[in-house]
Formats: sequence, C-alpha cells, structure tokens
Amino acid sequence: MLTCNKDRVKNKIETFSMFGDAGSGGITRFSLSEEALKAREEFVKRMSAVGAEIVTDDMANMYATLGGTDADFPRIVMASHCDSVRNGGNYDGILGVIAAMEVIETIVLEKISHRHPITAMIWTNEEGSLYPPAMMSSGVVCGKFDKAEMLSSKSSQGKTFGEALEESGYVGDALNRFNPKDYIAMLELHIEQGPVLEAEKKKIGVVEGVVGMVNYRISTYGQADHAGTTPMSYRRDALLAAASAIKYLHTELDKLDSNLVYTTGEILCHPCVHTVIPDLVDFSLDVRHQNPEVIRQVVEIIKNMPKTFDKCEVKYQEAWARNTIEFNKELVDLVQKNADAYGYTSKRMYSGAGHDAQFAAEIVPTTMIFVPSKDGHSHCEPEFTSVEECWRGINVVLQTVLEIDMGA
Amino acid sequence: MLTCNKDRVKNKIETFSMFGDAGSGGITRFSLSEEALKAREEFVKRMSAVGAEIVTDDMANMYATLGGTDADFPRIVMASHCDSVRNGGNYDGILGVIAAMEVIETIVLEKISHRHPITAMIWTNEEGSLYPPAMMSSGVVCGKFDKAEMLSSKSSQGKTFGEALEESGYVGDALNRFNPKDYIAMLELHIEQGPVLEAEKKKIGVVEGVVGMVNYRISTYGQADHAGTTPMSYRRDALLAAASAIKYLHTELDKLDSNLVYTTGEILCHPCVHTVIPDLVDFSLDVRHQNPEVIRQVVEIIKNMPKTFDKCEVKYQEAWARNTIEFNKELVDLVQKNADAYGYTSKRMYSGAGHDAQFAAEIVPTTMIFVPSKDGHSHCEPEFTSVEECWRGINVVLQTVLEIDMGA
Repeated sequence: MLTCNKDRVKNKIETFSMFGDAGSGGITRFSLSEEALKAREEFVKRMSAVGAEIVTDDMANMYATLGGTDADFPRIVMASHCDSVRNGGNYDGILGVIAAMEVIETIVLEKISHRHPITAMIWTNEEGSLYPPAMMSSGVVCGKFDKAEMLSSKSSQGKTFGEALEESGYVGDALNRFNPKDYIAMLELHIEQGPVLEAEKKKIGVVEGVVGMVNYRISTYGQADHAGTTPMSYRRDALLAAASAIKYLHTELDKLDSNLVYTTGEILCHPCVHTVIPDLVDFSLDVRHQNPEVIRQVVEIIKNMPKTFDKCEVKYQEAWARNTIEFNKELVDLVQKNADAYGYTSKRMYSGAGHDAQFAAEIVPTTMIFVPSKDGHSHCEPEFTSVEECWRGINVVLQTVLEIDMGA
Repeated sequence: MLTCNKDRVKNKIETFSMFGDAGSGGITRFSLSEEALKAREEFVKRMSAVGAEIVTDDMANMYATLGGTDADFPRIVMASHCDSVRNGGNYDGILGVIAAMEVIETIVLEKISHRHPITAMIWTNEEGSLYPPAMMSSGVVCGKFDKAEMLSSKSSQGKTFGEALEESGYVGDALNRFNPKDYIAMLELHIEQGPVLEAEKKKIGVVEGVVGMVNYRISTYGQADHAGTTPMSYRRDALLAAASAIKYLHTELDKLDSNLVYTTGEILCHPCVHTVIPDLVDFSLDVRHQNPEVIRQVVEIIKNMPKTFDKCEVKYQEAWARNTIEFNKELVDLVQKNADAYGYTSKRMYSGAGHDAQFAAEIVPTTMIFVPSKDGHSHCEPEFTSVEECWRGINVVLQTVLEIDMGA
C-alpha cells in the first residue's frame, strides 16, 4: 500500500520542535507568539514549495490547498494546531499539521491524481494558553463562540487576543473560513494523550467521538476553630468532610461503567492555616463518559450524596457540561478499514480530551485518528510518540483522504 | 470575699476595644502598631494614676509596679499582651492586661496592704501577626529565642521588628527584664479560646499547663495525567491518596485518648487544575495532648501508616514538636482553692493554645486562669466573654495575688 516518507516525517518533527524549544525536550509555543509565527512560516515555506495555495481567514486560521482535477469539488481538509501549553511536548497539535503537510507532499511527489482540492490547515489558538478559552478559533468558525468576545480575551499580561491577531500579520478574509459548503470532510491526526494504546499494544486509535462531560464544584462547610483548644467532639472540620465526600464519590462512581473517568483535580481550603480547623473546602469534580445515560447516573449519585459528612453541610453546583460528540460514522469506518488494510492493530475509542475536531464535526463530516503516547504523558515535555508510530498514523490519514477523494 | 469592681472592668473592656476597632465587634491591633501604642498609652495613663512606677525592657515589654511594704521582696506579676491577630477579638490577651490593671487599682483604692511589689505587665508581640514568631518577647526574655534573630523578623511589608521596636519609643533597659531573681510568681488570666467551659457550664478554668504537640507534614506522591484521557485503572491520584490518608489517620487517632486533639488545617495540591490528576498533595497534621505517652502513640500511628494509599507513596516528616509545660502546682492549687472559695464552678484543664505564660513558667513559678469563650470562638471578631465572667476571673487573680503576697 501507499505510504508516506518516514525520513520526511522525522525531519518535520525535528524542525518544528525547534520553534519554542523549552530546553527539556519539549516546547513553549503559545498561539501567535514569535515561536508560533516561526512555525507558521515553516508551514508556508513547505506548502509553497509543493505548489499549495495559502490563505488565512479572519481568525488567522491557515489553509494550504492543493488543487484537484475538478475545481468545483469541495475540499478535503486535514487540520490541527501548532500552539502548545507552557512546557508542552513536540506532538500535541503539531503532529496533525505535520501529517497534513506530509500527505500533501506525498501526493505531489508521488504525482497522485485527485479530484478534490486537498487542504492542510492550522487552527489558531487551540490550547488557549495565553488567551482562553481552548479551541477558540474552531469555536468561532463553527458557531460555538462569539468572535467579539474572543477578540477581547486577555492574557495575564493584559494584551487582548484581538491585538495579538492584528500584530501577527496572519489575518485574512472571513470568506476563507472552513464551512459546510466548501468542505466535504475534516481529518485530525493526534496523539492519544493517554496510556491505553501503548498499554494495549495498539498502533491506531479509531476515534468514534469526544466524550461528554459534566463539571461540578463541591463544597463542605464547617466551623473555623482553634486547633489546640477545640475538643474533637465539638468540631465541624470541612477538610475531614471533603476527604469523606471524595472517598464516598469514588466508592459510588466506581460501581458505574469502567470507561467512566472522573477527577478531583482542584481543592481549595479556607483558611488553610495549620493551627485552624478549616471552615470551607471546595473541590472540582470533572466527569467524562461517551454515554449520556452513564453521565445521568453520575449526576444522580451527586444529587443523592448525603447532605452532610462529619457534621458539615455539603453542597454541589454544576459548573458546566457538554454533550458527547459523535464523529461521522462513514469516516470512522473508513479509518478502521484503512488501519486494518495496513495491518496496524487498532482500538475504537472516544477522545477524553477536547479537540478542534469536535467543533468541526458539528458542521462538516469529521473524524480523528490517534497514535500512542509514551506512558500516556501529554501537555508536558516528556510527551513522546516514535517516528514509526507517527508515520503509521499519517499513512492512515493519507489512505483515508485518497478514498474520500475517490468517493469511497 | 474581696472583689474587684465590675463597672471598672466594663469600662476597661470598652475603652481598649476602641484601639484598633475593626468595625465588626473586634479589633486589628498588631504589636507596636499605632493602635497598639494607643493601648500602651492608656495602660500608662491608668497605672500612673494609681501611683504605679512604669518601666520597659529592651523588648519593649512594659512593667507597671506598685511598691510593697517590703522593698526587698521579689515581685508578683500579672501579665498578658495587648496585640491581636487581624480581625481578632476584644479579649484575647488584653483581658489579662485589664485584669492586672484592675487588681492594682483595687489594691490601691481599697488600700490593701501588701508586702511584695505587685506588677502589671504587657508582653510585646505575643501574636506574631506582623513579625513572627508568636510569643516573641517572652521567648527572648525566657531564653527560648535569639534576640538578634527576632529583631530581623520581617513583616510582609519588609519592615523589621527591630525597626518597629526603635520607632515605638518603648525600648528600655535589658536590666528591667522579667527574671527569676526579681519575680516570685506570674499569673495570666486569659479567655479559654475553646468551647469546653461554656459547654460544661464552668466559670473558671484552672489551668494545669500547656499541652505538648507535634506537627507533621504528610505528602502523597502520584502521577499528573490528563483528566479526560487516563482510565481510572491507570491513575495514581495524589488527592485521592491524601483523602484516604486523612480518613485513615482519623480512624486510628480516634482510638486514643479523648483529650487528644489533632488537625489537618492546611492542604496543598499540585498542580491544582481541574483537568489534571494531582501528582503531589501535602497536608499538615497538628497534634496536641498533655501526656507525652499519648503523643508517643500518635507518632507510632504515623510511623506505622501504610507506605502507599491508592498506589501513591506516602511520606511524613516531623516539622516541629514541643513538650508539655506543667504550671507550678502550688499556684494551680491556690487558683483552685480561690475559685472554690468564691463559689465559682471550675474545671482543671490544659491550654491547647500557646501563651507567654508557657515560656515564663520555665524560669518563674507561673500559672494561668481561664474564663469561658462564647461558642468557643477566638481569633475572630465574634470572640466574646461577658463582663460578669471576666470579673469572676479577675477576682480569682486578685485573691491569688494577695495570698501569694501573704506567703500562702
């Protein structure tokens, strides 16, 4: 079967890893930063070299398009992002852009005829590291976020996203935006960012969608008293109550589906002084599962939680929620078929993390392909996926693009 | 029996409550602040008015002394502090100074003959609110802290305690320091700062000593991973482990003596982001009991704690410890006898909080008398003890001073 070029893949990974090199094997490359602009220049250089036409839209999303034999056919786009979190890795986001470039280079160099225009795309500000929220520009383009509101998003240094956008020199016409009329499909190759593929020795994650989630804040209310003068029987200790609530939630939630993930990542304690019994503890509960019925059961467990733990009142509040996004079934099956055809072991899975593809999926047939993350690490400098594993993922993208083009 | 004057007590409480009035029934009166200097001026005014001679020592501790019939006799001192925590109450510390003034005024106005000089004293910077540590000046005078080190203690605004001391105008001769040669006894009246006297309907706490304590830091070590992409079975969640450790410690420590108090007041979580599984949680464990054997059992429980909770390693480290201080048995018995003689219900107890008296006790026979704290609150504006209850405590101080003077 047709494959892309492993040396070129390696060269791209190494080249892009220099833009924002953070010194410990990873990068800090905030969206529209000097480092991110270098990555964009490299993208322009490489895509121009193979004859792709490059435009940007009003959110500075970049589109490098290789014309097809039929000018009126809608485009097939491969997209991801080139920005990172602080001290992030060399794969999250940029791998999808590298895949898009490599597929286009392969098509050009191998002189593969195609009917549809094929586009390599960079979404602006997926991480939202400097200018929240995450997935900002796909959110604007796909109608999830208000553009004016996004332009006023401020970094901690007080600069707005709108200012950064103007300064970048990459603002183009809103008419160039990704849209349902001009695009027939979007594919995003991404690292898994979790340990499952590696642990189960699978090479390709066939991504069926992005899990739905609910996010709660849970608070326990005690009485602040002196650690030395208050007998145990008189106490209402909000931290003890929070520990009890966390243990209770784990016990109850563990009875549900084994694919459920839930996290208490943040805990705040007041007054947080070693000689004072805490009077208020507040913690987060992030819960994700693809099946809305399981999420419903989680919410039931939260709602039926005891009203008090250790004599402290417990309150909960939904912070936000989002529904599961199902990717396009035909595209998912096509990815599966191609992974099988290459002889790559694979696993059907849902993405637990958010991606631009989840917004894109709401307006254009979309799917994602995952490759393994070493030790499951991501958003950190040790993030790693071997060239061989990246190359396999890109081969699946290549074959899938060509079959979409053939109208498979 | 001889009593002091309830109206004068009320007037003193009301007057001193104005110096640093924080607006919600309490005060903010940091040591050597403008507000604290006003309290010192009021002390000078009132003590001068009844003929006491006022001096200060090199830590700005203040001594107002009423000469006795025998000039060579050592002094009997009543002492506490006039500084507060931020948004503290009108009783912690200042009540002991009010008691000292009221006893001296009563002796003068009632023309009670006494052989020993009798001193009302203010210790500088008991709370350590601006300049840590707490009990700074009693620590220096009683040989627990190094003076030069204390002078360099800095407020968060960058001012040193030494600078504040010089500016105060209250620095005197080191020869005036409280010492074992010139002092025969020290008494400190204080609010309980806990709920026990009120709950047990006792009017006087006969304080036998200050409980010993150990302070530990306990840390759990997990693995930071993505909240959405890491299945539960792959996780090492340091916050879940900390919750388990806190529950474990409560279960085990609750099997020990009912007078044991222990507190996990502080908890720090890293990275403390709702979408990331915590990799490090660190919490405090403050443990207090009068019996060293019980403290030893606590340390055994900590040392025998499981090495891991929820697949996370757990480590502990002793931050600091102090032994139980036993007050002078004759003085404790004298306080008990006088509480009984007045017909006041009483309870023998240990102080769970630290006081200047615990340092004083190491060089001069010392004891404390407690009065009830409404709802056990202290170090907060709602801190309250009725005039009647303060007055009873001061009566016990008065009678005890007079009996020490008589050589009882």
